[in-house]
Amino acid sequence: MRRREFLAAAALGAAPLAARGGGPEGCTARATGGLGIVIERASGSVLIVDRIARAAVARVEGLGDLSHASAVYSPDERFAFIFGRDGGLTRLDMIEARIAGRVMQAGNSIGGAISDDGQLVAVSNYEPGGVRVFDAETLEMVADIPADSKTVGLVDAPGRRFVFSLWDRGETWIADFEGAGAPLITRIAGVGDRPYDGLVTGNGRFYIAGLFGEDHLSLIDLWAERPAPRPILPGYAAHDEKLPVYKMPHLEGWAYTGEAFVLPAVGLHEVLWVDGRSFEPMGVTPTHGQPVFAMARPDGRQVWVNFAHPLNDVVQVIDTQSRQVIHTLNTGPATLHMEFAPRGREVWISVRDENRVKIFDTQSLEQLAEIEATSPSGIFFTARAHRIGL
Amino acid sequence: MRRREFLAAAALGAAPLAARGGGPEGCTARATGGLGIVIERASGSVLIVDRIARAAVARVEGLGDLSHASAVYSPDERFAFIFGRDGGLTRLDMIEARIAGRVMQAGNSIGGAISDDGQLVAVSNYEPGGVRVFDAETLEMVADIPADSKTVGLVDAPGRRFVFSLWDRGETWIADFEGAGAPLITRIAGVGDRPYDGLVTGNGRFYIAGLFGEDHLSLIDLWAERPAPRPILPGYAAHDEKLPVYKMPHLEGWAYTGEAFVLPAVGLHEVLWVDGRSFEPMGVTPTHGQPVFAMARPDGRQVWVNFAHPLNDVVQVIDTQSRQVIHTLNTGPATLHMEFAPRGREVWISVRDENRVKIFDTQSLEQLAEIEATSPSGIFFTARAHRIGL
Repeated sequence: MRRREFLAAAALGAAPLAARGGGPEGCTARATGGLGIVIERASGSVLIVDRIARAAVARVEGLGDLSHASAVYSPDERFAFIFGRDGGLTRLDMIEARIAGRVMQAGNSIGGAISDDGQLVAVSNYEPGGVRVFDAETLEMVADIPADSKTVGLVDAPGRRFVFSLWDRGETWIADFEGAGAPLITRIAGVGDRPYDGLVTGNGRFYIAGLFGEDHLSLIDLWAERPAPRPILPGYAAHDEKLPVYKMPHLEGWAYTGEAFVLPAVGLHEVLWVDGRSFEPMGVTPTHGQPVFAMARPDGRQVWVNFAHPLNDVVQVIDTQSRQVIHTLNTGPATLHMEFAPRGREVWISVRDENRVKIFDTQSLEQLAEIEATSPSGIFFTARAHRIGL
Repeated sequence: MRRREFLAAAALGAAPLAARGGGPEGCTARATGGLGIVIERASGSVLIVDRIARAAVARVEGLGDLSHASAVYSPDERFAFIFGRDGGLTRLDMIEARIAGRVMQAGNSIGGAISDDGQLVAVSNYEPGGVRVFDAETLEMVADIPADSKTVGLVDAPGRRFVFSLWDRGETWIADFEGAGAPLITRIAGVGDRPYDGLVTGNGRFYIAGLFGEDHLSLIDLWAERPAPRPILPGYAAHDEKLPVYKMPHLEGWAYTGEAFVLPAVGLHEVLWVDGRSFEPMGVTPTHGQPVFAMARPDGRQVWVNFAHPLNDVVQVIDTQSRQVIHTLNTGPATLHMEFAPRGREVWISVRDENRVKIFDTQSLEQLAEIEATSPSGIFFTARAHRIGL
């Protein structure tokens, strides 16, 4: 296994971009708490970055189709699990900068999650549908959950559970791997017409499904004895009919400020505020364009927003107390994604059409550094290893 | 420096307890996201632990008086900064398991913090009083903030700020290191008679000072233009006069469940519930003994509580929805401290008089493993590197 992995890595190409210090020749002493990856979608590669050094460490190639790719991390922050659009699941060794495992687990997939004990990695599939679950160490399949539907909005919840929704059946399922044998599946019906995405709150309690065919969202309290859907934000998606499907905002673009959720409006130049306890609407803030991601700085005092084409060369900063835009940053063409340092000190922003990741200080709003990357999109820091519900 | 550090480590003794794998001879490849330390107070040593392997990695000796010792981590999770009671500040290399720097910075000190950019480490001193701030890499002193008082309750806040309270002056100070030169000090007067401890909420917004000479606590909104103290929980400490000072609960023993704070009552067999937005009291839950630490499982669904002597051989688990004790674990004599895995899957508990750290599954409440340790007290996982306000 070790040899095969090594050969695979050599064949696929892991190119160190900088010397790695800290030990004898050939040694790879490296703390992992400050690392991350940048998805290079066009070239099927990822850049391993060191956010403390504000530098790229290595490029790893051969990850296939990385459209809408996302990543989660092992609890020790050593391995990234990268979910490609083509069904590829890649286990990336962040220290040795090489592919430590890769399976083509489906024909078309969208996102995944890792269990709270770090032992199971689940992937949400469009083709053939359902969810497949893998051993995080070997990538051997440990469960195949057919659902007779495309699955979306797959997240982890405490207690070796995964939660996901069924586009074709309007259901949300909870797969519980706490016991020894096959997973225990709880099916929640009546979630609504064509769920297209989902999120869970940072404590793993509230699951929210976005619905393509309804003018509301569905909220499920996973702590309830019998979890059941409750419609929230009626009218939120009333603009659907005029909009093509690709305009539906991804729900991972929701920000939680500690008191409120901030979410991109559908097809409008505004973000919506929703009370974090009652899930009642609180108002809107006009923005520069159609928001894509609204992300809370980790202290919840600001929300940073990027925008859809053609107004996607700007990031706006919203103060969560006044709910006003307090700054507009000209970040550059095709500003696709943002990732905050876990304590919020700085933010990394992918500017695809400049082939750069730009790093801004979130206090002074000054640009601190930039890193070359090939058509960068998603940025994922290892600190995600320690968070629930990704 | 490197040679001196090595000699110091050799002299002070760094004893590997297990082979470290992952690379060539002499190499120390190790991801740091799953590491932690256990304070061994009686012997002035710390045990480096691997929470993924549920094993001790190495013991490092020579850290002086570790009574009430606490620790914070560099943003890359490589270095622990350990605050001893004797004024010693130790920089511990978690990968190489050696002391990478140590200064005796005062005669008597209590706790410290690291700035949001990881560059500054601050220590709160009883003797000579005030706060001293050090370069996190070299441990050279970069600022000395005399306060004409013992200082307590030192925490970090976003924007290179430290917040602490003055026992002898009834004030809370904010030291802002955002600018180039000397820190900008904001002095908040009228906090109350003899603040003895403080905490800041997980978003860095609300600072709460415990007061030895008052029957309430003081709340300061650090986001306010002019932060000012507001008394909360009148009557909370009305029992003070009958109690010796060592009974005052440490405020780091507060739990935040997402909606409420749970805190140890003073000298009573109960925990108190306080609304997380209004800071109004919500009720009490009777407990086995006088609570010492009330700690929220990271998802906020449970609070785990340990107790003061002589009832300190038990941990109780409280459900945060029903606010009832749902389980009592017989952990063993002198159960001193608890630390959750960052996603809450398991909890590590120090049982001093059994010389063991016991690891429990937080779902099944089964004991998973135990580790030998010499009179263990505080446990600190590296995931703390990514959190605000420690």
